[in-house]
Amino acid sequence: MRKIHVIGIGAGDPDQLTLQAVKALRGTDVFFVLDKGEVKNDLVRLRRDMLDAHIPEGTYRVVEARDPERDRTAGGSAYSPAVGDWRSARADIYERLIAEELCEDESGAFLVWGDPALYDSTLGILQEILDRGSVAFEYDVVPGISSVSALVARHRTGLNRVARPVQITTGRRLAEGFPEGVDDVVVMLDAHQTFRQYADQDLDIYWGAYIGTPDEILASGPIAEAAPRIERLRAEARERKGWIMDTYLLRRHPKNH
Amino acid sequence: MRKIHVIGIGAGDPDQLTLQAVKALRGTDVFFVLDKGEVKNDLVRLRRDMLDAHIPEGTYRVVEARDPERDRTAGGSAYSPAVGDWRSARADIYERLIAEELCEDESGAFLVWGDPALYDSTLGILQEILDRGSVAFEYDVVPGISSVSALVARHRTGLNRVARPVQITTGRRLAEGFPEGVDDVVVMLDAHQTFRQYADQDLDIYWGAYIGTPDEILASGPIAEAAPRIERLRAEARERKGWIMDTYLLRRHPKNH
Repeated sequence: MRKIHVIGIGAGDPDQLTLQAVKALRGTDVFFVLDKGEVKNDLVRLRRDMLDAHIPEGTYRVVEARDPERDRTAGGSAYSPAVGDWRSARADIYERLIAEELCEDESGAFLVWGDPALYDSTLGILQEILDRGSVAFEYDVVPGISSVSALVARHRTGLNRVARPVQITTGRRLAEGFPEGVDDVVVMLDAHQTFRQYADQDLDIYWGAYIGTPDEILASGPIAEAAPRIERLRAEARERKGWIMDTYLLRRHPKNH
Repeated sequence: MRKIHVIGIGAGDPDQLTLQAVKALRGTDVFFVLDKGEVKNDLVRLRRDMLDAHIPEGTYRVVEARDPERDRTAGGSAYSPAVGDWRSARADIYERLIAEELCEDESGAFLVWGDPALYDSTLGILQEILDRGSVAFEYDVVPGISSVSALVARHRTGLNRVARPVQITTGRRLAEGFPEGVDDVVVMLDAHQTFRQYADQDLDIYWGAYIGTPDEILASGPIAEAAPRIERLRAEARERKGWIMDTYLLRRHPKNH
């Protein structure tokens, strides 16, 4: 039976690999790499460096494929269907890779930045392929340090406050309103700096980009003061590197404390 | 200047240590171990085994102290003040340990199960000690694989669904009602199996205890069917081991999907 490892490789610092992830890398015959056709060459190189650092050369193969284009123009309620189409297109590619590039007794792996459990499609896609029934495999998941976890570690703060909840959400959701019932909100996948919408509120922001890499940028403070600063840092970094990957925590001062 | 590392050591599987955590362990002169005076000897042994596995003997010291008793009888609105008292008592102990047991040029470490960012008091306590101003030190945080991350990896599912939020909360909060605005809720620190309160709802539960250890137990399914099963498994395990540490994800089938 074919085996697939879905391996969380951490948020960008190669030392965020777990010992379990290193063992899984070493037990892998074929790495599947999806090329986004974008300028994120740093990430491709970083991933390649991890393999070089932990696995003897010549003991594994790397199979590359082109990621399907995602329709990012679809907004609002059209978001989920667009994601669904893209996911099925990706499932077609993964299915072909697993069937054609992996022998019956071999192990393949997909490497996922951060933690495969947070805003990553790999697990859903593998389940979709199994449901189709044309190729059989077993799979397991190696959890990774998420960018969320790495962000708050670098800011030396917690995700939640004592006995209180925390919500992890998207920029798109935050644009619809501050989540109900929570004062601590982590925002991922925000291409539009939605935090600016809350700059007049009694909030602190803890922001980070390229966390754990040599390009890491951190900024924090009361949002009214920090938001313009982050906007500037973000624009400069994006201009310099051609891409940005950032995350932030919004912390409201609770009324009853 | 004294240095303190707050090191997340993962949810129970020694292989969940990151390479960064192993380096921090090796760079530590003094490990501070708080003995809860409880029957969790398995955890004490597991932690000791990690040190033995990664650091040469004789290169470090272990300093043990007794954890203050926590008033667990206080309920409702009295919860936060009771936690506050306990935290200050713990800060007294940590302050003394750092001042008396760590030389000026040495590094100390607190090892935290899971991720120091989730429902752990260490970072807050260190900040409280610094605010008091009687002992000076620098500190950093090494993020760890949380029990939340480990739970969903073992169940091979994500924390959130596509483009949707997830909330992490406590059993106590869940008892007050299902959180607003989310369909995916992770529950920690639940001594009362609060999931039973939702057994008549259209929910799936993904539950795990002692995750990543040889005693690991996993159970999942529609909550009406799974809740009594989990209740039985939990009671048996608690009886057998004398303590239990469990976490679960509740997943509601969204109305608009």
